[in-house]
Amino acid sequence: MTYCVGLHLREGLVLLSDTRTNAGVDNISVFSKMQVEEVPGERVLAVLSAGNLAVTQAVWNRLQEGVQLDGTRQTLRSVPNMFRAAQLVGQAVRDVYAADGPALKAQGIGFDISLMLGGQIAGEAPRLFLIYAAGNFIEATADTPFLQIGEHKYGKPILDRVVKHDTPVADGVKLVLISMDSTLRSNLTVGMPIDLLVYRADSLSVTLRKRITEENAYFRSIREGWSAALRQAYLEMPRPDWVP
Amino acid sequence: MTYCVGLHLREGLVLLSDTRTNAGVDNISVFSKMQVEEVPGERVLAVLSAGNLAVTQAVWNRLQEGVQLDGTRQTLRSVPNMFRAAQLVGQAVRDVYAADGPALKAQGIGFDISLMLGGQIAGEAPRLFLIYAAGNFIEATADTPFLQIGEHKYGKPILDRVVKHDTPVADGVKLVLISMDSTLRSNLTVGMPIDLLVYRADSLSVTLRKRITEENAYFRSIREGWSAALRQAYLEMPRPDWVP
Repeated sequence: MTYCVGLHLREGLVLLSDTRTNAGVDNISVFSKMQVEEVPGERVLAVLSAGNLAVTQAVWNRLQEGVQLDGTRQTLRSVPNMFRAAQLVGQAVRDVYAADGPALKAQGIGFDISLMLGGQIAGEAPRLFLIYAAGNFIEATADTPFLQIGEHKYGKPILDRVVKHDTPVADGVKLVLISMDSTLRSNLTVGMPIDLLVYRADSLSVTLRKRITEENAYFRSIREGWSAALRQAYLEMPRPDWVP
Repeated sequence: MTYCVGLHLREGLVLLSDTRTNAGVDNISVFSKMQVEEVPGERVLAVLSAGNLAVTQAVWNRLQEGVQLDGTRQTLRSVPNMFRAAQLVGQAVRDVYAADGPALKAQGIGFDISLMLGGQIAGEAPRLFLIYAAGNFIEATADTPFLQIGEHKYGKPILDRVVKHDTPVADGVKLVLISMDSTLRSNLTVGMPIDLLVYRADSLSVTLRKRITEENAYFRSIREGWSAALRQAYLEMPRPDWVP
């Protein structure tokens, strides 16, 4: 599996993905699940993916080669806005399904992928989308300013409680790392290193792109600090004095 | 869905289950998922269930009626030890599968249930089992002193970090309520009220059985306190000063 989380904040976007892929428990590899297209001054788009690696890589390859949309071959570098970019990713998913779906089905393999697309194209605000295996999509809004794909449950309680649209970007980075840590701690199919992308609104260039390894001092402080803080919070909750 | 969690502690057992069942989002009901058999001075057994309600109720009905095991009809009140009790529950699951499995399959409905069995029968220590849809089972040990069925992911990070075999029973109650709260907060298919059972080792009678509602003052203090503590812990984590 995979865990990817994206925050759609007033100050910009924070995207985080793990890198573990596995075909059975004895075949584990590191693959980045975050692909970035950048035309400084004009656009930054990032695609995060979860699910069957052959399928998600096929989607990415098609996106780079160009996908038919509105009667012409387009890429993430040519689409005029983020809505068209989300449609393009969805169309790439549908094209892969048309090409590979029957053969996958014949082998009993589901077409279970999902993607996240975040970024900004000059002329509109940053946007963040979740694209389903059917090629349709939803968009994060100020009401629910985060999206997740893959193993999303372990890391959701902290997001549900804390993230707001006006959370500062730096706090958002802290938050997605805590959310990722909870997932890493409880699920073996999500693994280090992790890829972080920070995009400040209207900068139209990548603010920060960073691979975080086990040795990263900040992430270690989060891991150790968060575990200690959870244990401490648990200790400080009142004890049920009504239990005989 | 459902969330049930059981702790196998040195001092005894702590079992907690929610009560929500749903057939679609517009058909939500309250059903207890915890059934208890008690013969004071001799045995206490509790069965918690997750999955298709018709199937889990059928399992419970068969257990009460008696299930063939070792060539004779037995119930949870007649089996000589906890291993046989787990076998009996497993056999009841297999009997229901034999009776209803084909008809369920014809309707495209999976036989996706799981059960937890905890308790003590005089002559051996308390034990806690998780019984699968195949009727086989695993047992909690001192190394991993908790078991979960149903929507287990949201409430797992705190268990992974805190629970030990020598956690006192009162702390165990606090812990399962925190774990349940995280699940309730993030997943609509798990709902209040919740059923708690505490069993102190070697007492051979139910120590505490309690239905906890929204109005329960202690659970409210956990809900509010835990959310506040998580937010506080997040605030106290260092901010990443390396984010531009």
